[in-house]
Amino acid sequence: MPSNQTNKSTEKQSRHSLKGQKLALKQPLSLDGGGFLDPVTIGYQTYGTLNADKTNAILVCHALTLDQHAANEHPLNGRSGWWDHIIGPGKPIDTDKYYVICQNVIGGCLGTTGPAELNPKTNEPYALSFPIITIGDMVRAQAMALEQLGIDSLFSVIGGSMGGMQVLQWAVDYPGKVFSAIPIATAAQHSAQNIAFHEVGRQAITADPNWRGGAYLSEGVKPHKGLAVARMTAHITYLSEPALQQKFGRNLQDRDKLTFGFDADFQVESYLRHQGITFVDRFDANSYLYITRAMDYFDLAADHDSSLAEAFRNTKTRFCLVSFTSDWLYPTAESKAIVKALNAVAANVSFVEIESDKGHDTFLLDEPEMFATISGFLDSAARARGLEKRRSA
Amino acid sequence: MPSNQTNKSTEKQSRHSLKGQKLALKQPLSLDGGGFLDPVTIGYQTYGTLNADKTNAILVCHALTLDQHAANEHPLNGRSGWWDHIIGPGKPIDTDKYYVICQNVIGGCLGTTGPAELNPKTNEPYALSFPIITIGDMVRAQAMALEQLGIDSLFSVIGGSMGGMQVLQWAVDYPGKVFSAIPIATAAQHSAQNIAFHEVGRQAITADPNWRGGAYLSEGVKPHKGLAVARMTAHITYLSEPALQQKFGRNLQDRDKLTFGFDADFQVESYLRHQGITFVDRFDANSYLYITRAMDYFDLAADHDSSLAEAFRNTKTRFCLVSFTSDWLYPTAESKAIVKALNAVAANVSFVEIESDKGHDTFLLDEPEMFATISGFLDSAARARGLEKRRSA
Repeated sequence: MPSNQTNKSTEKQSRHSLKGQKLALKQPLSLDGGGFLDPVTIGYQTYGTLNADKTNAILVCHALTLDQHAANEHPLNGRSGWWDHIIGPGKPIDTDKYYVICQNVIGGCLGTTGPAELNPKTNEPYALSFPIITIGDMVRAQAMALEQLGIDSLFSVIGGSMGGMQVLQWAVDYPGKVFSAIPIATAAQHSAQNIAFHEVGRQAITADPNWRGGAYLSEGVKPHKGLAVARMTAHITYLSEPALQQKFGRNLQDRDKLTFGFDADFQVESYLRHQGITFVDRFDANSYLYITRAMDYFDLAADHDSSLAEAFRNTKTRFCLVSFTSDWLYPTAESKAIVKALNAVAANVSFVEIESDKGHDTFLLDEPEMFATISGFLDSAARARGLEKRRSA
Repeated sequence: MPSNQTNKSTEKQSRHSLKGQKLALKQPLSLDGGGFLDPVTIGYQTYGTLNADKTNAILVCHALTLDQHAANEHPLNGRSGWWDHIIGPGKPIDTDKYYVICQNVIGGCLGTTGPAELNPKTNEPYALSFPIITIGDMVRAQAMALEQLGIDSLFSVIGGSMGGMQVLQWAVDYPGKVFSAIPIATAAQHSAQNIAFHEVGRQAITADPNWRGGAYLSEGVKPHKGLAVARMTAHITYLSEPALQQKFGRNLQDRDKLTFGFDADFQVESYLRHQGITFVDRFDANSYLYITRAMDYFDLAADHDSSLAEAFRNTKTRFCLVSFTSDWLYPTAESKAIVKALNAVAANVSFVEIESDKGHDTFLLDEPEMFATISGFLDSAARARGLEKRRSA
């Protein structure tokens, strides 16, 4: 049984060992594209304590460029976890009540097997010999890891953006194992516009001569410029036009007037360049290719006669969907399509569209209405599940 | 006086001479950033016949990657002009009634002096020694060219996107010379989000090692990959999410199922790659840097105590603004801000928001309501200007 790992104990570890917990899958991972991935290591973090009945586990699923370090200091940059404000004692995902697990996805680059890891057949990094993976593969690997950790069912699965895709995939592929599900700012299939933005990012990476056909790690270089351009493009889509206008407008960066040159005259340019530069230090370019591809391939209805409702038929899972008004990457209409499909099969579903001008990335921000929605839904589901309120005990 | 050049006569010319008419400015061009550009050649095309009073001239202003070939076969790719459906006998901009001029902008790469032209001081292409230019500089050069062509005033100035910026700049800088103005799908200042998308494009170009600090022409290479990525990113912003979904959705390209690889499985990927590849053959990478910069710098209110209304004070010009419902690059709110400023100074202004799901690029498409708006407004302005209806005579 996994031990209780608190933030405090994590902080005591050295920077090196902070790379976190790891687990080797005991079986090869079968892949949607055919074949198997073997061996597979899963990097993961846990918070809180698993109860004796093993009924209080919550799986947190991360988005494209995030990782398992949801509520602990990040081993690479020392920053606090990306959901540190949501996961912890007394927080919306209350670690006094729940046992929280977050795993780095297959194809990732922070502990779980991905294209930057050594291919045991060649003793070189996988690079493009890594198989194309899907959201289904990510979820299958998570399920195998949980089984090895002795967790047979999940009280809840929660995540935003690509994390939300995993939540939906969990509910469809493991209907008996998911008591409740909270997909946030997500969609049941990737839209043409979203595929288009991902394709631009991939083109930017592969256009970088340092990408070397994917073999940059073996050749001792990195396609930092291409990866930075990919990140900058994507980052614009994570925000909203009003948010950019309010935050930056046409404000100048460290200058009183236009320089009539190509320097970053405008704050928004400086901000974007910073986003690109800091990203390349923490993320692998090939992982970016593989994970964006997995998202593009995501289409829950496709395997169910193109019927999203059919995918959810007979589900017993309680759903709570959340969208944000200014999210133009995964707009509210995408969540509504899921709600409609769930209603069509008489599923237990609630849906909240939260007013926010901060765009897609609102799911990562200090958004009180989202906090209240998550904690309220979890409280209600906990009562239905018969979980004791440990804090008031 | 300029001669009447019809499409027919143009077609008789050889492909080489199809590069069109050129004119050398007789004076150096003073620049908003300081200094002068000298010599300056202007590439332009004309359609229709200037009347004896010289009162029927319409200046058509082009967008970022377009050029003076608005209504004739393009000399590089043989395609028909970008506004061929709007300019011509009996068309919304009726060449039986009006004399139409379209000039390639300063900084461009198809006849007008830009960074790809030889710097007379070095006998090498200007590259980054070309001065930063503004929309104001573009318009000043156009005014000088028109003066040399014997045209002292314009019956109308019309253009979409960056063309619309020039229209607005014309009305502000030459209030006595512009009888009517039709800014389409544009804004009075470039927003933070638009600056951000441009910056990503510039970063993609300058990240290409073949850019060579801008000196690629001297070194016999071209930053085609970076320029293609810039174009692909921008192209997404010219369309709309619904248009992409309807046109491509998740349709596969020349295959029945996903290939589980990085080929262009999806039609939208194939389409975007095609947009990138074809663009680099017709456009200069440094021109892309300079013209996007000019757009970023555009802020009509900035020189008028940050008051857009003040910029238009005492204007006698009749305005007709057009926006499109699904344009998220220059959304209707931007046109409304201009209308509000014009109303504040009691200008003669009409405004039409056209229902379209085709996004920003609707201004280039076969959009009957836009055609009717343009021809109706021009008819009305022609009556006010006392222009005879030549077709019915």
